[in-house]
Amino acid sequence: MAMSKIYLAGPDVFLPDAVEIGQAKQRLCAKYGLEGLSPSDSEIGDGSGDLSGAIFRACLAMMNQADLVIANLTPFRGVSADSGTVFELGYAFALGKPVLGYSNLPGTLLERVAGHLGAEPTRGPDGRLYGIDRMAIEDFGQVDNLMIAEAIRADGCRIVVPAVPVADPLRDLGAFETCLVALAGLTQPPARD
Amino acid sequence: MAMSKIYLAGPDVFLPDAVEIGQAKQRLCAKYGLEGLSPSDSEIGDGSGDLSGAIFRACLAMMNQADLVIANLTPFRGVSADSGTVFELGYAFALGKPVLGYSNLPGTLLERVAGHLGAEPTRGPDGRLYGIDRMAIEDFGQVDNLMIAEAIRADGCRIVVPAVPVADPLRDLGAFETCLVALAGLTQPPARD
Repeated sequence: MAMSKIYLAGPDVFLPDAVEIGQAKQRLCAKYGLEGLSPSDSEIGDGSGDLSGAIFRACLAMMNQADLVIANLTPFRGVSADSGTVFELGYAFALGKPVLGYSNLPGTLLERVAGHLGAEPTRGPDGRLYGIDRMAIEDFGQVDNLMIAEAIRADGCRIVVPAVPVADPLRDLGAFETCLVALAGLTQPPARD
Repeated sequence: MAMSKIYLAGPDVFLPDAVEIGQAKQRLCAKYGLEGLSPSDSEIGDGSGDLSGAIFRACLAMMNQADLVIANLTPFRGVSADSGTVFELGYAFALGKPVLGYSNLPGTLLERVAGHLGAEPTRGPDGRLYGIDRMAIEDFGQVDNLMIAEAIRADGCRIVVPAVPVADPLRDLGAFETCLVALAGLTQPPARD
C-alpha cells in the first residue's frame, strides 16, 4: 500500500517558525511510515500577485492530494479552533477523507465560553444553557463545537488532548504524535459509517 | 427550474428565538422565489439519545439536500465566525455548492485581532504582521480568515457587510437579504472557475 499522505492542518502556519514546525511534523509522520503535507511548504504565492487566493488554492490542492487530515484544534485567539483549520476540516470531511484532530489546551468549549464571557451560564426555559450574551452554549462536554467534534467522532476517533498540561500549546507535538500512533496502528484508514 | 434550496448556516441556532429567526429567513427566501432550509427545524434529536450526533447528521443531511449556502459569518464570541458555521462552509464548498455569506459586524479580521490582543500588530522579519501573541495575523483586508473569504470569492461573491452599523448584529437580516437579491438576479447559481 502506498504511504498515506496526511494534510497537516492548523494555526501552526501563523507561527514565526511555521516552516520548522511543519518539518518537525513531517519527520514525525515519516517515523510512523506516513507522509506529512505541510501548508507552510506552499505559502509562497503563484506569481499572480494574489497571495490570499494563491494560498487558498494551494491548500485545497494539497488537501485534494491527501488521504486524511490531522488538525491542530488548539483554541486560537478565542474559544474555538482556528477558523481556517475548521474550514479545512469541513472541506476534507465532505470529500470523505478521515479527519483526526488534537487540542493542546485543556477544558471543554462550555468552560472556555464561560471564561470568555466572565460569567457562569444559566439554564434557559428551553432547557439550553445560555451565556450572559443571551446566546446558547453547547453543553455536550465536547472540546469544541459539535460539528468539529462529531466529524472526528464519525471516523471513530476523538479529539486527542494531552494527559498533562503542556508548556507551549501551539508548538507541542505530543498529542499530534498520539494521532500518528493511532493511525499507524490501523492497517487501513478508519472506515466511516 | 426547481426552486433553489438554500441552507441557512449561522450562529442563529444559538439565539433564544432561533426558530423565529429561521422562519423569518425562510419567509425572505420565499419572497425571492427561493427555499430556505433552516437547521433550527431539525434540532430535535432522532431518539438515539445522542443529541449532538443527531444535530450533526441532520445538518449534513440538510446541506446535502441544499443547492447552495448562505452563511451568517458575523463574528461570534471571538474574532471570527462561529466555528460550526465555518465547518459547514468548508463542507458545502467541497461538495461544489456555491457559498455566500454576510457579516453584520464592521471591520477586518486584522482590526478585530488587534482589538482582541489589545496591542497594535508589528511587522516581523519575514514581512508578515504579528500580534503581541507572537503569531502572524492575515493582512489581506478581509472580513475573516482567507479560507472563508476566498471560498466565497471563488464563487464570484464577496462577504456582504451592512452599509451602516446595525443595532442587533446577530439578528439583523439586511445583509442576508442583500445576498438573496444577488441570488435572485442570477438566472442560475454562480459558476465556479
